[in-house]
Amino acid sequence: MHHCQTLLQAARIVTQDAQRRVLSNAALAIDQGIIVDIGPSAELSSRWQADSCLHLEDRLVLPGLVNAHTHAAMTILRGLADDMPLMDWLQQRIFPVEQRLTPRLVRLGSLLGFAEMLRTGITACTDMYIFENAVLEAADQAGIRCLAGEGVFAFPSAACAQPSAALTVTRELAAQYQGHERLRVAVMPHSVYTTTPEILAACRDLAQELNLPLHMHLSETQEETRLCQEAHGRRPVDYCHNLGLLDLPCSLAHVVDVNSAEVATLRQHGVVVVHNPSSNMKLASGTAPVTEMLEQGLTVALGTDGAASNNRLSVFTEMRRAALLHKLRTANPVSMPAQAALDMATLAGAAALGDARLGSLEKGKAADCVALDISEPNMLPLHNEASQLVYAATGMETRLTMVGGEIVYQDGRFTRFDYPALCAEICDLRAFLWRAAGLA
Amino acid sequence: MHHCQTLLQAARIVTQDAQRRVLSNAALAIDQGIIVDIGPSAELSSRWQADSCLHLEDRLVLPGLVNAHTHAAMTILRGLADDMPLMDWLQQRIFPVEQRLTPRLVRLGSLLGFAEMLRTGITACTDMYIFENAVLEAADQAGIRCLAGEGVFAFPSAACAQPSAALTVTRELAAQYQGHERLRVAVMPHSVYTTTPEILAACRDLAQELNLPLHMHLSETQEETRLCQEAHGRRPVDYCHNLGLLDLPCSLAHVVDVNSAEVATLRQHGVVVVHNPSSNMKLASGTAPVTEMLEQGLTVALGTDGAASNNRLSVFTEMRRAALLHKLRTANPVSMPAQAALDMATLAGAAALGDARLGSLEKGKAADCVALDISEPNMLPLHNEASQLVYAATGMETRLTMVGGEIVYQDGRFTRFDYPALCAEICDLRAFLWRAAGLA
Repeated sequence: MHHCQTLLQAARIVTQDAQRRVLSNAALAIDQGIIVDIGPSAELSSRWQADSCLHLEDRLVLPGLVNAHTHAAMTILRGLADDMPLMDWLQQRIFPVEQRLTPRLVRLGSLLGFAEMLRTGITACTDMYIFENAVLEAADQAGIRCLAGEGVFAFPSAACAQPSAALTVTRELAAQYQGHERLRVAVMPHSVYTTTPEILAACRDLAQELNLPLHMHLSETQEETRLCQEAHGRRPVDYCHNLGLLDLPCSLAHVVDVNSAEVATLRQHGVVVVHNPSSNMKLASGTAPVTEMLEQGLTVALGTDGAASNNRLSVFTEMRRAALLHKLRTANPVSMPAQAALDMATLAGAAALGDARLGSLEKGKAADCVALDISEPNMLPLHNEASQLVYAATGMETRLTMVGGEIVYQDGRFTRFDYPALCAEICDLRAFLWRAAGLA
Repeated sequence: MHHCQTLLQAARIVTQDAQRRVLSNAALAIDQGIIVDIGPSAELSSRWQADSCLHLEDRLVLPGLVNAHTHAAMTILRGLADDMPLMDWLQQRIFPVEQRLTPRLVRLGSLLGFAEMLRTGITACTDMYIFENAVLEAADQAGIRCLAGEGVFAFPSAACAQPSAALTVTRELAAQYQGHERLRVAVMPHSVYTTTPEILAACRDLAQELNLPLHMHLSETQEETRLCQEAHGRRPVDYCHNLGLLDLPCSLAHVVDVNSAEVATLRQHGVVVVHNPSSNMKLASGTAPVTEMLEQGLTVALGTDGAASNNRLSVFTEMRRAALLHKLRTANPVSMPAQAALDMATLAGAAALGDARLGSLEKGKAADCVALDISEPNMLPLHNEASQLVYAATGMETRLTMVGGEIVYQDGRFTRFDYPALCAEICDLRAFLWRAAGLA
């Protein structure tokens, strides 16, 4: 008998390993946050003596999903501005509130966002916002994995008067979280249309100096392409390529308005694209050519974007939406099968975060997993696990979320923070937010 | 003090009345299945003495949603065939199973489908299938409202060897359920491409004779239009118009491949269109021009279609998908605002079912309502109720579902049937279904 901290036994384990095996009546042995064994429940029970046993014999267990592009703090803006023209939405509602944000508001909004993610099966995310120190505090409190970065803009944010200040924050956060088990820092210029070539070059240099990855919005709309061509004489991908940004470990959000030459450029540089189908639909940005990207061998992950443009932070929602959207776009019901969508939400998400421990349940990988209630009516009958996860599940079937071997959510309860107290604080923000958005 | 059976008190009531009022700290007084009063909780408490009080002070209550096109029994096929070309999907998987269906299988599948609907806030539906007597039995067992009809085909179904037999079944069911509080019968020819002009004329005559509404699939794909033009020299809308079908009280599912003249024809005849965005995306059928339909004054409801082409039976999912899809299609983020989607799921659904008691919470209307848990992370903060219901809610926040004043689902429990026993029966079908679908 070997010893481990936790033995988790489940009805089914969707491994997402190289063979995409689904194991029935299977178990995970977990020690020090790592999966030390996986296999038939009976075998593992006889092989491992565990400090604690998790009996999930009526659950389906899958790898924790990865939300590879979000702005968790924007959760406090959910429903504050919808169904508006893009510029009115930004200038009349979002920007006025964002100019009045404080670290406390960002921490509260982020904690609510992380709560929603853990509640719906997400164990890791990439987050870009302002006051990112407060976001990281919230991530630590919630227990989620997070690749975080202070948004760098040419204009002042509520957090940083100048882009250099945002880079200083990035440098400080990178030092503070160096070697952290769950939290990492990236350089995050907001986009080509909110920065200058000099700012992007400074971002590149900082990322190189500190060996940090880079994450930014790119080619979100045709309008962005037009502005980039007007200002810099190049389309966004070419512009970033020319500035050397694509030579860094790099993930790019949206990537809607790209042609096949640009897709080839991104693939050659090993860039990970983060597809945000809900946000792109809600803001009427267009549809990223994801099937062509996948055919060309590009790695494509999924993101929820922020709650002001989604309004959910659920990768289950994005999996299903991606699978359906690309069938419609290509007029082919075979496009984007369920397994491809599940791969985007797990393995490609791990690639987007540059963290090879994530994305599958295998020996040696991080014990980041989710257990779903498969007795809910929409989960029956269970003919095909990938299909059920992508087309039928909502994410609200999540009954347990584990990050690095630690249970962070179980049966309605968040283990690392006081959720009812958070709800009360969020409700108290209402009057402030309405005034800030010009609604009251 | 007046007397009523039930006083329901909630944090918010989304009425869907003519002014689309949302009431805070409000109550419904319910008697004999009807809303007899609605207003501030304090007022109603002092005005009504109730046999029982439902304290839902931490819930949001809305009208029960209407699923205006489904095949509930197909729930047993969920996940059995996905990501396949349409004809392979139908001919290799769906039809072979459907040829081996029995009343018992249809009853079990329907009961599971109705369980999913009640669990996710649906209180009424239009159902077309075979062995519809078994569907109606299941609807009665579950307590859902249902407008049901035996599918009429030119070829034999497992239930009916000939179309005339399906019409006989329709006649018998209409007699059996005459005057039933929740269950009604319609004439349901399957589609133009699975019937003949003679069959459609016989359907029309029966509907006229028995004063029944008519429901069918129409203009689902460009291929259907092509076939109809080839066989009958007319496009589907014109073909049905010519046969007098549109003169009946009539709801038509899908209506994807239509031009503006056809939309005008449908509007002139008071036809209700049932939009099925998930199914149309999953089968790559195309996108119905719903924004143009609404602009022209057509009534458009929402449907889930069956679980083999969705794979959920949730009108929350369809609301959100419709709102996002039409923003993308029209390249305009103002298209299909949240309130329009909510109207489709409630008031237009009532019109589709031809039942004016449904769709809103007002004095004199049926007490069909749903209570959502608004303390789930995705439901916070609550800045705008319509936005939250359409963009943020999944439907799994449903904690109570009431039909005609009777609680049929509450906190995980179905009140009128043994759900765990149903789950066990459904699981036992697996081997049969796999053999029937040629998978084992």
